[in-house]
Amino acid sequence: MRFSSEKLKAWCINCLEKVGLQYEEAQIVAQVLISADERGINSHGIMRTEGYIQSLQTGGITANAPHTIINNGPAYALIDANRGLGIPVSVFATDLAIEKAKNSGIAIVNVFNSHHHGACGYYSLRCADKGLIGLAMSTGDVIMAITGAAGSSIGNNPFSYAIPAGKYRAICYDIAMSTVAAGKISMAALEKRSIPLGWLLDQNGNPTTNPNDYTKGGSLYPFGGYKGYGLSIMVESMAGILSSAALLKDIHAWNLDPQRSGNVGHCFIAIDPTITNPRFSVPERAEEMINQLLSQKKAPGIQRIVFPGELENEREIDAKVNGVVLPEATLVALKYVSELMGIEFNEESLKQG
Amino acid sequence: MRFSSEKLKAWCINCLEKVGLQYEEAQIVAQVLISADERGINSHGIMRTEGYIQSLQTGGITANAPHTIINNGPAYALIDANRGLGIPVSVFATDLAIEKAKNSGIAIVNVFNSHHHGACGYYSLRCADKGLIGLAMSTGDVIMAITGAAGSSIGNNPFSYAIPAGKYRAICYDIAMSTVAAGKISMAALEKRSIPLGWLLDQNGNPTTNPNDYTKGGSLYPFGGYKGYGLSIMVESMAGILSSAALLKDIHAWNLDPQRSGNVGHCFIAIDPTITNPRFSVPERAEEMINQLLSQKKAPGIQRIVFPGELENEREIDAKVNGVVLPEATLVALKYVSELMGIEFNEESLKQG
Repeated sequence: MRFSSEKLKAWCINCLEKVGLQYEEAQIVAQVLISADERGINSHGIMRTEGYIQSLQTGGITANAPHTIINNGPAYALIDANRGLGIPVSVFATDLAIEKAKNSGIAIVNVFNSHHHGACGYYSLRCADKGLIGLAMSTGDVIMAITGAAGSSIGNNPFSYAIPAGKYRAICYDIAMSTVAAGKISMAALEKRSIPLGWLLDQNGNPTTNPNDYTKGGSLYPFGGYKGYGLSIMVESMAGILSSAALLKDIHAWNLDPQRSGNVGHCFIAIDPTITNPRFSVPERAEEMINQLLSQKKAPGIQRIVFPGELENEREIDAKVNGVVLPEATLVALKYVSELMGIEFNEESLKQG
Repeated sequence: MRFSSEKLKAWCINCLEKVGLQYEEAQIVAQVLISADERGINSHGIMRTEGYIQSLQTGGITANAPHTIINNGPAYALIDANRGLGIPVSVFATDLAIEKAKNSGIAIVNVFNSHHHGACGYYSLRCADKGLIGLAMSTGDVIMAITGAAGSSIGNNPFSYAIPAGKYRAICYDIAMSTVAAGKISMAALEKRSIPLGWLLDQNGNPTTNPNDYTKGGSLYPFGGYKGYGLSIMVESMAGILSSAALLKDIHAWNLDPQRSGNVGHCFIAIDPTITNPRFSVPERAEEMINQLLSQKKAPGIQRIVFPGELENEREIDAKVNGVVLPEATLVALKYVSELMGIEFNEESLKQG
């Protein structure tokens, strides 16, 4: 079954309005979440409505919080999210970085006092769709090991970049710093499969192939070992320290406590290549680079070589025509949230067409 | 045996002057190379003099090439290296980025028409030592596979960042995009050891544990699979496309052909946190972050947890007091270059003290 983006958005807006969000803010959140589903990134799609509502209901987030620019220059800004939702302030910050970069060539906008902001790639792709190069980073809850340590020491700190790429629309890379997302480990546990070494450490810091170790105090392991560990520190520094947000164990990305700020930090950098480099068209040369990469000889057993974001770009085109594909887990979340909000839930009513 | 940085520098300057370099340019190259040896990054240390001399002698590099700023703004610049050495123009570009960032908060400086520029971490650390956050990237020769392809498709594209960190001096992360450097594979071949899966593909694109496959058309494999592949595209885009430098197979990082430009590209970004974020001291908070990371419980069998650049910082302190440690491979290179340049070579004369 395919679902209608517009109907899903309306459902999401309805839920968010019921917990006190004004239409404009709810509409932005719904738009960003459904965009992730359209691109097949369902883990950061509309299923996240549940978590945001919990934080809003408990007072862990302040609804309709203003975005206060507390430091401002032609090529930078620092924004206080005032304990609000992560998504609206991140859209605001990205657009501010774009506007500044169109004049300054490059601009950086940092955010503190924020919350989980959905799929990081949304913000870098938003830059690329306007012809700019975009980078986006966010801090997150401590759930990952660092090299040499037992237990979780740092967040899975997402990092994303995007480059406009002509007929290919954009390269859009969006990763977390663990070898795999926690969801893949939970899935293996459900299906009683063992997992490869390098995915997880047990509670004592030993490598393990048992996915059940995750819920027993285990920690995700950084991709590429110390190389992924080092990148998670970069994100902690650029999105956390440079934003004057909380660090490491002081971060509460899904805060439920009205007495504190979850104080997530974000960092957005936009670069306008038409200003910094007028010699060649960046989208045209990105297109050439992709042409060269995709025309390489394939390794045995490989059907297709892809560039970062290519499959997501294709899914989005397909979703816009044929409707969104949602996994069972999302439908379960939609049903649960509907009951919570006292909304009648009917899968059929969200269908495409 | 420990060696004297000053004597090594004098040797290097002497060699470079013999192939036409002016003292000032030779001095910068020697300084950057020996700094890598002091930090224990010997693969990018004074042993590289050999390659630079070969390119200078054949006309693959133009000696004493001017650095022409062809596009300039308060927060950006684009520099034509005019087929010159990569190191002097990269020092110039880094200092320009620092100077601009001190006014603009953030600045980006791109370079084209350049050559191999030594250890990428030198430039980001140069920013951190002046209180700024630094990022440095460079394109390089195609020697690495991309996910799904047989053969080499992209460079090992180095990426570095550094953050000033108070009593810890700086976090300095400097990686290439392959799981391991080619040198580790050559070493395994010499010692007739097999290598782990994930280091190398053979000439047909199959994973291999035989290090001898490297010289038979094999390719280095990106760290973390598609995650390292995607980061190599970021560097190719930021240092290659955005710099209007050559891309992929058109890059000749060790050019020996006087009829063409190797056309390596670099990208340097500097951020002055005292301008973008006046709320807290970035070095102080970086210090706090490091304190928290280093105090984590150690995994079984681990003696010590370190942050990126910590071991290199320690080696540098040691080298400045006790002299530089050089591996046999560097001494072989020094002897070879000395003979080539008609300089008497005597290890004893380079000793510390």
